[in-house]
Amino acid sequence: MLTLPTYEDVMAAAARLDGHAHRTPVLRSRSADALLGAQLFFKCENLQRMGAFKFRGAFNALSRFTDEQRRAGVVTFSSGNHAQAIALAARLQGIKATILMPHDAPAAKVAATEGYGGIVVVYNRYSEDREQIGRTLADEQGMTLIPPYDHPDVIAGQGTAAKELFDEVGDLDALFVCLGGGGLLSGSALSARALSPKCKVYGVEPEAGNDGQQSFRSGAIVHIDTPRTIADGAQTQHLGQYTFAIIRRDVDDIHTVSDAQLVQAMRFLAERMKLVVEPTGCLGFAAARALEDQLAGLRVGIIISGGNVDVARFGELLKA
Amino acid sequence: MLTLPTYEDVMAAAARLDGHAHRTPVLRSRSADALLGAQLFFKCENLQRMGAFKFRGAFNALSRFTDEQRRAGVVTFSSGNHAQAIALAARLQGIKATILMPHDAPAAKVAATEGYGGIVVVYNRYSEDREQIGRTLADEQGMTLIPPYDHPDVIAGQGTAAKELFDEVGDLDALFVCLGGGGLLSGSALSARALSPKCKVYGVEPEAGNDGQQSFRSGAIVHIDTPRTIADGAQTQHLGQYTFAIIRRDVDDIHTVSDAQLVQAMRFLAERMKLVVEPTGCLGFAAARALEDQLAGLRVGIIISGGNVDVARFGELLKA
Repeated sequence: MLTLPTYEDVMAAAARLDGHAHRTPVLRSRSADALLGAQLFFKCENLQRMGAFKFRGAFNALSRFTDEQRRAGVVTFSSGNHAQAIALAARLQGIKATILMPHDAPAAKVAATEGYGGIVVVYNRYSEDREQIGRTLADEQGMTLIPPYDHPDVIAGQGTAAKELFDEVGDLDALFVCLGGGGLLSGSALSARALSPKCKVYGVEPEAGNDGQQSFRSGAIVHIDTPRTIADGAQTQHLGQYTFAIIRRDVDDIHTVSDAQLVQAMRFLAERMKLVVEPTGCLGFAAARALEDQLAGLRVGIIISGGNVDVARFGELLKA
Repeated sequence: MLTLPTYEDVMAAAARLDGHAHRTPVLRSRSADALLGAQLFFKCENLQRMGAFKFRGAFNALSRFTDEQRRAGVVTFSSGNHAQAIALAARLQGIKATILMPHDAPAAKVAATEGYGGIVVVYNRYSEDREQIGRTLADEQGMTLIPPYDHPDVIAGQGTAAKELFDEVGDLDALFVCLGGGGLLSGSALSARALSPKCKVYGVEPEAGNDGQQSFRSGAIVHIDTPRTIADGAQTQHLGQYTFAIIRRDVDDIHTVSDAQLVQAMRFLAERMKLVVEPTGCLGFAAARALEDQLAGLRVGIIISGGNVDVARFGELLKA
């Protein structure tokens, strides 16, 4: 029997993060409002420390380590942003961090992880099981494994972004959240249910990797092969036990968008809102655009999850 | 004898702008702080309506029109952002706007100006005198000319950005402000002198167009040929009567940076702060980087003036 994190855990995480995480701005755009015929509130986690919401969950999880755990260090696996988040949060808390990263992770993310002092160990995304490697390292060296999403303290930390959004703007009619493994979505759902109970909470996945949608609709966690999509932060193969249980209970639906829709959203966010957003971070806005018929006149929250994209790659995507 | 605008005019402008202009966020970056060994406060006017601080001055100036002026319309000349600002502010206030734009203005700026309902008239930046054309149109058709910088109401409006910065973060040791014709710099200086009297106020120009520096140091307005620089918002040929008088009295120095330094600053702002900033908008940060030896331990404000750059061009500059 899993003990799921609650909104009380999100509040406790918010207290731990106070003074360490940025309280990121909620931006408005009249162009975006006009485009969708709705009132949009963008919670800009691309402006979070290390460039993504992942700092929240990582810092919260490490804050709860015992002295023994601190001495032995932390290990994790991540396609990118959680890696940087653990590396930075660990450095801030004086903990040694070992990070398993896929061989094809964006160069900017590997460099940033090492820049934050993380020890990077590379594995093959398509042929090796990162969770198994991580658990072996944890067992052999006594390190604590903090996975990228399926952990109560990670989920509670991620939920603080939506908490800040509701605290700042009040009730919303709908909230769009990027969905990879479900840490941000499940945490956001905890905050939404507590702070704006009638708000529809939607997860958004890349079309090529709609395991979350399949799981949500079938009622059981569906595993898929690593999807090929530009949304590298959502190349997860399955939801977690904790995240799925919360998503199933508290989320209203899961939508998908194509890579082309992501690029279109990314271009709008760059051109009109002057924001550098990584492809994964565009999922929520891309889905809102696709569903604009259903959003007329509504107050809609969108979590922009991160901005960690190689600038050369960013330029290429915008030119295409 | 010129009657210069004062900080009281900035306060009046702030009241007029309330509810119309965005109160743009002041962003912090630990990476930037670490790079310079200082505490940096970025006032993000790239996140202002129409993508630049220029909305403030334009809206303030049009707010003071009489009914007769409103009926006859407004005319202006601009290398870009002031054009969009006048077009948008005029539309919001139900005033017809005619905009003189240079033949080589960025396509995004022309399109945006027309998108806001402005009537665009093109002239040759290198062979024609935009001020003369503007005055002729104003005289012949009874329109009121609102120039891009040398106007008390424009200056007072631009000063509201620095006012918000000081109101939010308190005293600063230094403030770096982009310098083209001097509207933003002179308005910022009015706010700085009132709100943080000991703060050093620096204007920053492109090396290729250092007329402001020459004017400041010689004590008389120096005219130059239109400079060739990627900072298209600072391709002004001379300061104005109003802006020079305030700059001479209230500004501490004028610095210059190269186009290469602008690109470097632009890349940092994109990579680490996830912001799309046009070349002109990078002037302040580029100069702060160049002067980092003198800024150690200080509280430094930087106004990021705008984000209106073709995204394809932005991508190319970042790749170079």
